[in-house]
Amino acid sequence: MKEIRNKNQMNNKIRLHAPATVANLVCGFDVLGLALQEPYDIMEMELLAEPVVLIKHEDRFGLPTDPQHNVAGVVLLAMVEALHNTCGFKLTINKQILPGSGLGSSAASAAGAAAGANRLLNNRFTQHELVQFAMLGEKLATGVKHADNIAPALYGGVTLIRAIHPLDIVRLEPPPLHVSVVHPQIEVRTSDARQILKKQILLKDAIKQWGNVAGLVAGLLQKDYELIGRSLEDVIIEPVRSILIPGFDELKKNCLLAGALGGGISGSGPSVFMLSKEAGTALAVTKVMSELYERLQIPFYSYTTTINTEGIKFAVI
Amino acid sequence: MKEIRNKNQMNNKIRLHAPATVANLVCGFDVLGLALQEPYDIMEMELLAEPVVLIKHEDRFGLPTDPQHNVAGVVLLAMVEALHNTCGFKLTINKQILPGSGLGSSAASAAGAAAGANRLLNNRFTQHELVQFAMLGEKLATGVKHADNIAPALYGGVTLIRAIHPLDIVRLEPPPLHVSVVHPQIEVRTSDARQILKKQILLKDAIKQWGNVAGLVAGLLQKDYELIGRSLEDVIIEPVRSILIPGFDELKKNCLLAGALGGGISGSGPSVFMLSKEAGTALAVTKVMSELYERLQIPFYSYTTTINTEGIKFAVI
Repeated sequence: MKEIRNKNQMNNKIRLHAPATVANLVCGFDVLGLALQEPYDIMEMELLAEPVVLIKHEDRFGLPTDPQHNVAGVVLLAMVEALHNTCGFKLTINKQILPGSGLGSSAASAAGAAAGANRLLNNRFTQHELVQFAMLGEKLATGVKHADNIAPALYGGVTLIRAIHPLDIVRLEPPPLHVSVVHPQIEVRTSDARQILKKQILLKDAIKQWGNVAGLVAGLLQKDYELIGRSLEDVIIEPVRSILIPGFDELKKNCLLAGALGGGISGSGPSVFMLSKEAGTALAVTKVMSELYERLQIPFYSYTTTINTEGIKFAVI
Repeated sequence: MKEIRNKNQMNNKIRLHAPATVANLVCGFDVLGLALQEPYDIMEMELLAEPVVLIKHEDRFGLPTDPQHNVAGVVLLAMVEALHNTCGFKLTINKQILPGSGLGSSAASAAGAAAGANRLLNNRFTQHELVQFAMLGEKLATGVKHADNIAPALYGGVTLIRAIHPLDIVRLEPPPLHVSVVHPQIEVRTSDARQILKKQILLKDAIKQWGNVAGLVAGLLQKDYELIGRSLEDVIIEPVRSILIPGFDELKKNCLLAGALGGGISGSGPSVFMLSKEAGTALAVTKVMSELYERLQIPFYSYTTTINTEGIKFAVI
């Protein structure tokens, strides 16, 4: 093991928090995402001298422990192979981000594993390489090697995936924003959510959408909250996908009345998120979300949080 | 006339420069545009006590002098009406931006007239109102009340038209950029250029486009020249419209080889523009453009300039 440690790297055990993420940021379908302060998965990792990957769960979800069938496992196996089998990893996962929530649960595991392993390896890989490793986890989870949630989980803040081939990720520093999230306990399969989208769209709708995407990026970078609010409009995906989420139109209307800048479906749902300028507004928005699902008698989880601008957070054990 | 002048407004005659503009900034079709330092129209305006609009041309284009059939004239008539016929304007135009160049020639006249009148009126109207007045000129010229060239001509720099109803214009401060422009002497009618566009596009192409739009806005605001370059890609409009411009593919390839960050069709053509980080590169790019049209034996004009960040420029006579 000595060959992969140097004098500055004294710890071979770490603990980390891997954040939940919101992909498909309203108008930014498939390109914009953000990382949340809460919820997050807690992971503990240890560097091993043997080329093995050991996985243990400390939660109630019964996810696979065979690394070949675990989203974090396939990431670590690929990293071990890239290191010519000179080391291995032991990983303990305490998952707090509910699988199937639309909050990047699998991406948190994959990104957390990649970033944790890299920290144990004294940052041998670049951030870009970590994205590539972590995408293997998404491939296992969803069948598609996408970076929509991986990018914000690793980079923090708001991320733009400008292009996929070759992968071009741009980090955007957002102004302080408060985020309300509600996760109604219904199932929306990512594959179903993608299947109902039309393959062709009207050019005039696409122009509206890229006007809003440009406005959202400008609003974030120029810290113009009103522009952010005006740009949080999706004329293409939301009208189709929102039918999968009970009460969506009323939910959104009520959140805007409560003062939210705007928001929409998180990932492919069923979670819905809203952005607010002030903490108090975000609390009121979360209350409005909760009241709706109480009335609809649909069990739900809710969160009132902010944007995580760091990505994966480390703590030495 | 006294009622519309105050103590700070001592001049009732002004001279102004109204800039050429590039609309449809590559991926930013219908939403992004920029103002050029050169060429520009030279206009002289005088405030009159009578509610009349007098137009005189000092150029070779033979444009209408009847204000009802002149793009600057209809703007001024609308302003006179908004002022309840309490004043009028005399306008002398020396047009330097060639009509039909795709460089916003009509917008320069309309925007220059609106801004000039407003200066004579001691800034009685807001910038937003000036856009509305100037759009009447575009309506006369093209049949459509669009702000694609009006917005950059009035605001300077790079402008985003986030939405049309209601009109939402956002000014983006660009980093220093050098612009090469070639205007081959062929005719491309705006109406033809619009007609050949498909009404429906693939969702996957639209996603590529709004990834690039987001990248371009982020590149401009973060002053990241490489990101600007990578984002100057249009997968939807350019492949269709470029067939109207002789030698376009070779032109673009040669410009990129000469070091341009990227570029494309200006407005609906036939002018083509390229952005460069350095002045020397822009000169080399203009040379490459000129060489191609010399070889193709198509007469052309060319410009090597920068971005005009002020919009309409005033000089007291």
